[in-house]
Amino acid sequence: MKLSCTQENFKRAIFNTERVIGKQSSLPILENILLETEKGMLKVSATNLELGVSIRIGAKIEESGKITIPAKLIGNFVNNLPNEDNVILETKDQVLQISSGKYKADIKGLEAQDFPIIPETTDEILFSFSAQNIREFIPKIIPCVSVDNTRPEISGINMILNEKITLAATDSFRLAEAEVSLNKKNNYSTFINKTSSLIIPSNAFLEVLRIITPETEEIDVAIEENQIFFQIENTKIVSRLINGKYPEYKQIIPEKFETKIILKKEELLRSVKIASLFTNSKAGEIIFKSTAGEGKIEISAQTEERGENKTELKGKISGPDQEIIFNPRYFLDGINSISTQEIVILINTSSSPVVLRMIDEKEKIQNNFTYIVMPIKK
Amino acid sequence: MKLSCTQENFKRAIFNTERVIGKQSSLPILENILLETEKGMLKVSATNLELGVSIRIGAKIEESGKITIPAKLIGNFVNNLPNEDNVILETKDQVLQISSGKYKADIKGLEAQDFPIIPETTDEILFSFSAQNIREFIPKIIPCVSVDNTRPEISGINMILNEKITLAATDSFRLAEAEVSLNKKNNYSTFINKTSSLIIPSNAFLEVLRIITPETEEIDVAIEENQIFFQIENTKIVSRLINGKYPEYKQIIPEKFETKIILKKEELLRSVKIASLFTNSKAGEIIFKSTAGEGKIEISAQTEERGENKTELKGKISGPDQEIIFNPRYFLDGINSISTQEIVILINTSSSPVVLRMIDEKEKIQNNFTYIVMPIKK
Repeated sequence: MKLSCTQENFKRAIFNTERVIGKQSSLPILENILLETEKGMLKVSATNLELGVSIRIGAKIEESGKITIPAKLIGNFVNNLPNEDNVILETKDQVLQISSGKYKADIKGLEAQDFPIIPETTDEILFSFSAQNIREFIPKIIPCVSVDNTRPEISGINMILNEKITLAATDSFRLAEAEVSLNKKNNYSTFINKTSSLIIPSNAFLEVLRIITPETEEIDVAIEENQIFFQIENTKIVSRLINGKYPEYKQIIPEKFETKIILKKEELLRSVKIASLFTNSKAGEIIFKSTAGEGKIEISAQTEERGENKTELKGKISGPDQEIIFNPRYFLDGINSISTQEIVILINTSSSPVVLRMIDEKEKIQNNFTYIVMPIKK
Repeated sequence: MKLSCTQENFKRAIFNTERVIGKQSSLPILENILLETEKGMLKVSATNLELGVSIRIGAKIEESGKITIPAKLIGNFVNNLPNEDNVILETKDQVLQISSGKYKADIKGLEAQDFPIIPETTDEILFSFSAQNIREFIPKIIPCVSVDNTRPEISGINMILNEKITLAATDSFRLAEAEVSLNKKNNYSTFINKTSSLIIPSNAFLEVLRIITPETEEIDVAIEENQIFFQIENTKIVSRLINGKYPEYKQIIPEKFETKIILKKEELLRSVKIASLFTNSKAGEIIFKSTAGEGKIEISAQTEERGENKTELKGKISGPDQEIIFNPRYFLDGINSISTQEIVILINTSSSPVVLRMIDEKEKIQNNFTYIVMPIKK
């Protein structure tokens, strides 16, 4: 292999692949990245066997070939280069000679043949969706992914394929769900007749989030043999799917509500954060009380050791008065997931699921995102 | 106690005192801060028994008094307040009622009588020095402070009081020394006749660094009964001194040098960083080679597993050629401590102390800061 490429492209490719490498790999070669020439470009790949990333960048190729080298070493090397000269790469046996201006190194590599195969798609795209939708909703959904290892089926993000795509996560204490639109490709209808619900590790979506920029428009998706492929411009991310059946959560989302409360998100966030300071760190309880007549919402908490706190907020309330006990963390994650100035809280009883939604300036409730939190029963 | 003060002042006082509190205190009261009215102001104090900080802020006092409350709780409370209203404090028995606009809390406190006494000065200032000198030199000196617990006498910063103040630190592998000018007060000469060398915990200087702003001009210093007091506007920092005799390090600083090398600091930094990647992480060795005739400096390193690296730099060299082996970390800390565009390296032999100094655009060597690194002997 012998080639040159811009330092900017090379740095970005190294940075974005190096990241998927786990801290402690069982196989030394998994701490390496694979450099290989492919169709007139340089392809940089890394994998942790669950998740693989490969990035193709423009290069002037004099001689094709491939090598794998330690990711951390090459990452630190390019990080210390001044942003001046192109990068020149040349392999001599199992050594990569890299140079950029006056900075040069011979890096010992390993046999590219031993590098694990990163699955490739047949390039049959199933659908594409908006990168900006993913950018908006995935950070709101990820906090709800279960960290309980005994229930692998809820340890990822559920993706339901239909006329829209529904993304959801739950840890059984709360649930977040978003609907995003898609561009179907030819084979979409046939595919969803067989498979319409997938479970995707949240790391795959985190990697997608890191790759997309505010300029990224579309993300192409393919699904084959228990693997999901995301293609974002010249970057491919491939992840295994999680086996199992995602719980039928739709049935717990109420369709009607007794009480509707609209209030300022920022004020609610501050009051709940402050109240959470006056709860026990492990199993805290904060009390949320609404009085319709006065348009009054009271957030309070107390503990023997720390003291007590009560904040009164004003809001628009319709329906019967309510008194709900929340776990502050689950409630806070929900409030944080609301990105409108005002938040709407929809309640039936003190023991049924409470729904948080975004609401625009004309008080129109946005139904494409739902956060559900279970109250603590007295 | 009953008073009000601006939220900005109160937040700053809480933030700057809360920090000295250790993570795990043996005494619960050490996790508290002390609030007390004093001379028409509110004084906020915290201590970890080695280091104490107290900050006085303007307040409208209706009733004097004092209370101690958990630092973390009050810190988180004020952090969550919107920057709008003043803070009102009122004590009821062992409870602090705090409110700011619509946000209120009753925080359980402890008896102020049980709070450890933070030593007070007799207000006899011994000298003052420039805050900007401290801001410049302390970060260059602190990396050299020894972390070896068996040698407490080098576990702090040495301060020698004379016509100038000399600050130094060493871990026996390298040494950094800075000279700063001072304004002596009346009692200075009498004092230094008895005591002219002190050892100050680096945490005390770190705290000073955190308190001073680019606008701070002078730091007043008093020394009494094994304690040092720094006064910066309305903030007082008090620290115990370290007992022991600081090593007579002056004798190891060479006065004459055989070889003088001037080169670009940024280039040297990059080459040494890159070379350090090709050393063993624990006991790395990089080779620094200078050839006077060609004005050539060569930085190189290699290991069996990782590969090798060599960078050639240009510089102005006078005196015999040199080949020195450095520990990359100690050499890097030294290069990092140079804040001029060019660095001067002064060498006698491959086994004698090497000196790094700053040098200005007119190639005048700045003698107020010296970094010494011991080469690795072959």
